[in-house]
Amino acid sequence: MNLRTFEVAPWLALLLALAAPMEGGTVEESPAVERWNTFELTLHGPATGNPFVDVRLGARFTDGTRTIEVPGFYDGDGVYRVRFMPDATGAWHYETSSNDPLLAGQRGEFTVTPARRGNHGPVRVRNTYHFAYADGTPFKPIGTTIYNWTDAPEEVQEQTLRTLATAPFNKARMLLTPQSVAYRRQFAPPRWPFAGQPPRDWDFARFNPEYFRAFEKRVAQLRELGIEADLILFHPYGKAWGFEAMDAAADERYVRYVVARFAAFRNVWWSLANEYDLVRTKTEEHWDQLGRLVQATDPFDHLRSIHHSQLLFDNRQPWVTHASIQNGSAVEEPGRAELYRDVWRKPVVYDEVKYEGNARRRWGQLSGPEMVHRFWCGTVAGTYVGHGDFFGVEDAPDTWTSFGGVLRGESAPRLAFLRTILESGPADGLDPVDKWQNVTVAGVPGEYYLVYLGRESATAWPFRLFRSGLKDGMRFKVEVIDTWAMTITPVEREFVITKSDDYTFVAVDGGSIALPGKPGIALRIQRTAPAKFLKE
Amino acid sequence: MNLRTFEVAPWLALLLALAAPMEGGTVEESPAVERWNTFELTLHGPATGNPFVDVRLGARFTDGTRTIEVPGFYDGDGVYRVRFMPDATGAWHYETSSNDPLLAGQRGEFTVTPARRGNHGPVRVRNTYHFAYADGTPFKPIGTTIYNWTDAPEEVQEQTLRTLATAPFNKARMLLTPQSVAYRRQFAPPRWPFAGQPPRDWDFARFNPEYFRAFEKRVAQLRELGIEADLILFHPYGKAWGFEAMDAAADERYVRYVVARFAAFRNVWWSLANEYDLVRTKTEEHWDQLGRLVQATDPFDHLRSIHHSQLLFDNRQPWVTHASIQNGSAVEEPGRAELYRDVWRKPVVYDEVKYEGNARRRWGQLSGPEMVHRFWCGTVAGTYVGHGDFFGVEDAPDTWTSFGGVLRGESAPRLAFLRTILESGPADGLDPVDKWQNVTVAGVPGEYYLVYLGRESATAWPFRLFRSGLKDGMRFKVEVIDTWAMTITPVEREFVITKSDDYTFVAVDGGSIALPGKPGIALRIQRTAPAKFLKE
Repeated sequence: MNLRTFEVAPWLALLLALAAPMEGGTVEESPAVERWNTFELTLHGPATGNPFVDVRLGARFTDGTRTIEVPGFYDGDGVYRVRFMPDATGAWHYETSSNDPLLAGQRGEFTVTPARRGNHGPVRVRNTYHFAYADGTPFKPIGTTIYNWTDAPEEVQEQTLRTLATAPFNKARMLLTPQSVAYRRQFAPPRWPFAGQPPRDWDFARFNPEYFRAFEKRVAQLRELGIEADLILFHPYGKAWGFEAMDAAADERYVRYVVARFAAFRNVWWSLANEYDLVRTKTEEHWDQLGRLVQATDPFDHLRSIHHSQLLFDNRQPWVTHASIQNGSAVEEPGRAELYRDVWRKPVVYDEVKYEGNARRRWGQLSGPEMVHRFWCGTVAGTYVGHGDFFGVEDAPDTWTSFGGVLRGESAPRLAFLRTILESGPADGLDPVDKWQNVTVAGVPGEYYLVYLGRESATAWPFRLFRSGLKDGMRFKVEVIDTWAMTITPVEREFVITKSDDYTFVAVDGGSIALPGKPGIALRIQRTAPAKFLKE
Repeated sequence: MNLRTFEVAPWLALLLALAAPMEGGTVEESPAVERWNTFELTLHGPATGNPFVDVRLGARFTDGTRTIEVPGFYDGDGVYRVRFMPDATGAWHYETSSNDPLLAGQRGEFTVTPARRGNHGPVRVRNTYHFAYADGTPFKPIGTTIYNWTDAPEEVQEQTLRTLATAPFNKARMLLTPQSVAYRRQFAPPRWPFAGQPPRDWDFARFNPEYFRAFEKRVAQLRELGIEADLILFHPYGKAWGFEAMDAAADERYVRYVVARFAAFRNVWWSLANEYDLVRTKTEEHWDQLGRLVQATDPFDHLRSIHHSQLLFDNRQPWVTHASIQNGSAVEEPGRAELYRDVWRKPVVYDEVKYEGNARRRWGQLSGPEMVHRFWCGTVAGTYVGHGDFFGVEDAPDTWTSFGGVLRGESAPRLAFLRTILESGPADGLDPVDKWQNVTVAGVPGEYYLVYLGRESATAWPFRLFRSGLKDGMRFKVEVIDTWAMTITPVEREFVITKSDDYTFVAVDGGSIALPGKPGIALRIQRTAPAKFLKE
C-alpha cells in the first residue's frame, strides 16, 4: 500500500499506443515526459472513509529554478494521482505532501523532453486581443459547440472524434456535467459525476472517478487532434439533477477536484459557466469567488472565462483572461463586434452567435452563409466567433451542438477556408485598422489588410487604405476572396499608393478592383515587400 | 472682520433681479431658500498668507433628521463661503467649523421653501439606464457641447445664452479650464483659473476667484434655463498652459475647490475629463482617485462620469454614475449603440458621436440628417446622444462647439422634436424590446413602442411586435413620425393583435402601415387603453 509506483493510466497507454511515437512507457525511476504533456504520478493510499474529503494530497515540482505546487486527487479504489504539465525541458524533481503518511514525502525525478510536432503548449493571451500557444505559435480560434458529446453513446462519441478529425475546429465548448434539458427525448447519461442515484440522490462529497476518467479520455483525444477543450464547469441545464444548486462547500470541492484532474492537460480552457446568469442559485459574487478559486488552484494558468445569457459579466475581473460572449446580433456586422474589445482590453470570443440549423427556435436557425458571414464580421472586428450546428428532426436534441455526431450544416468547409487565411496571416492577429470609422477593415497597418464587404454585392472596390502606417510609394498586391466559394483570386497588378486626403491613401492611377457583384466577398491586401510576420 | 453676515453675491443678486420671482434677498438672520437652490453663507476671515491652503472651512447642516457636511472655500479678499443645496423643505440649522477661530463655530438657521415651477432638483439615475430629477420628473438628455463658451467675449457669451434659451438642449458639456488648442487663431482667454501669468507661470496653490465667479455665473444662468452643466474638470487641450500637468497635490486642491464652489448648483454634473486617455500625465489609477475624491467631497452626490478618446474607462467603478462615451460609429445604427448598456448596467450617454459641421476633420463633418439619425439610433437603443455644431471658416475654431454663439446646423429643431416625443413617452425610459434580435424597437413591452427605420426607405411596415408583454386582443394605435420633416401622422385605424409565431404578434387582419418611402421614418405605437405612465 505504501509503495510508490509510476503508472501510465490504461486509457493513456492505449492512446499512446495509437498515437506514435511513444512518449514514455511504464517506468520506475525516471520516466521521460514531453514538455507540456502530462506527467502522472500514481500513489496508493487509504480507500476507507471518504478519501475525497479526508485526504489532502499535493506535490511540489522543481527543475531547480522554479517550484510549482500541484494539487492531487483521489481516483477511487485507493488510487491517488498528481498530474503535472511541465513547461520546461530537463530534469525535474518532485516531493509529495499529504495529511496521510502513506502519501506524504514521496520523492522522485523525471526528465522532460522537447515538445514534438503538433505540441505547442497551452494557449495564452497574446497582443491583448489575440491568442498564441506557449511556444509562440499563433492560435486563431475557430470554435464549435458540442455540449454533451461525452455523454452520448460510445459509437456517437467515436463518430464525433472522426468528425472533428477533419473539421476546421480548434476549440470545442463542452459541459462538464450532463444537461437534463437535452435528455428529455434522448438517451440518458451513461454515468454521473457524483456518487448516488438520479435524479437527485447525490452525495456531493463523493465524486465518481469513472465519470471523470471517461471525460478526460476525450479531453486527451482532443489534445491529440489539436483541439482546445473549453470545459464548462457549471450550467443551468441540469435542474432535474441539481448540479447547479450545490452549496458553496460542494462547489469548492468540485472546482478543486476538476482542476486537479484536468489542469495538466495543456488543451484545457476553463469556462466557469454557460449562461451563468440563468443559474439562479449563484450571485455574481459567487462566480467571482469560483473564478478566483480556479485561478488560485490551477498551477498551469489556463485561460479562464465565463459565458452569459442576457447579463454580461464584469470581464475586467483579473481572473478573466478573455470575454466569452453570447450575442444574437453583435456579429451581424463588424461595427458591433468590435465594441466589446475596448471595454475589457482582452480577447473577445463570441462563443455563441446563434447556431447554424433548422431549429424552431430562432437561436438555431442561421443559414450556412449567415454563419460564415458572422465569422468574417467577427474576424475584421478583431474578435473570434464560435460555431454551432443544430439540425434535427423538428427540434429533437440529437444535434451536433447537443451531442456531437456529424455536422449537417454547410459552414464548416468555409470556416476551414477562413482558418487557413487566418493562420497564414499576421501572427499578432488582426485588429481594426480605422476603429469607429471604417469597420470593415482589419489587419496590421502598412503590411496586411483584410477587407470584408459583407452583404454588399459590390462590382468594384476603389483601392483605398487608411493613412496609418502608410507612405507614398508603398506597393501592395491584392487578392479577391470569395468566402463562400472558397476561392482566392489574385488581382493581376500591383498598387502603388499616394496620399489622397487627411485620412486616405489611394492607388496613384486611381485604380479600382473588379468584384463579382455578390455577397460574402473579401479582399486580402499585402505589402509587396516580404513582411516579417508572414510565414514563408 | 469677525462679523458673520449673510450676503447674496452681486452676480446672484443681478440674476435674481432678472429672474422673477425673487427667491430671497439680503437677509440677516434667517433667510429663506428654495429647495434645491443654493443657500450661500458668507464669512469674513483672514486675507493674509495663502488662505486657499492655510484655512480649512466647512459647515454642518441639519434639519433635525439628517446632517450634511459641506466644504467651504475662499473667494478672495478675506471672503469665505459655504454653499449648501437643501433637498428638503423646512427649518435647517448650520454650524461652521474651521482651523481659523474667526470662521469656526458660527451658527444660524434658515427656512427652505418648496421648489417652484421649473425646479425639479438635481438629476439622478433612474431605472438603471435612464435619468430623472430628484422630484421624480423624468430627465431625457438632449445634450450639446460648448467647450469654452465661458471664455468667449462677453457679447458672445450673452449670444450663447440667447441661443440656448430657444434651443432643445437640456445638457451642455463645457471645460472648466481654457483650452489652448482652440485659441490658436482666436481671442485669448479673458481670465485664468490660477494666480500667475500665461503661458505657464502659475501658482497652482492660489486660485483666481474672479475666474470661478465668472464661470459659476454662467452655470447659474444655465440652471435658470433648465440646462444641466456637464462640467469637465480636466482635459488634454491646454498643454500650452499646463493645467493638465499639475502634481497630485495640486489636482486634489483643484478638485476640492471646484466641488466646494459648484456642488450647490443643482444642475451640475461632474465630468472628470474629456478624452482622459489623451492626458498623458495621469494614469487610470489617478483618474480613479480623482473620481473617488469628487464622490467623497460632493455633499449632494451629483452625477459623475469620465469621457474618453480611444481607451474606454472602466465605467463599472462605483463612483461612475453613467458612461460618457465618445464613438464615431456606435450610434450609426441601434444594434451597436445598445451593446454598452449591458456592460456597465448604467445609463449610456454618447456625448460625442462626431459633430454636425463642415470641418476638414472627419469628426466634424456630419450632415444635419446624419446627426438626427444618430440621435434616433441612440434613442431606440435605450441610450442618449450628444450634439455638436462645428461650422466655421475652413477649420477656424469659432464654432458653437468651441465657443458658443449661434447654431449653424440643421439638426437642432429636429432634436427639439425628438425631445417632445421623449418627454411625452414612458417616464422610466425606453429600453430595447427585443435585445439582440430586433434592434430597431425600444419602448415598454405591451404599452409603448418606438420603431426607428433608419436609412431604410420603406413604403410599408407590416404590423408586428415582439411577444413580451402581449396578449391576443390587445389594441394599439400607430403614428408615423417623419423625424426630419417633424410630422406625426396618426394611422386612421386601430390594430388588434394576435399571436403569429413563437416570437411575434401581428394584426388580426394582417394589417400593414403605409410609409412615405424615405429615410428617417419612425413609428410610435401605443396601447389604446390609457397607459398609466403617459402624461395626460
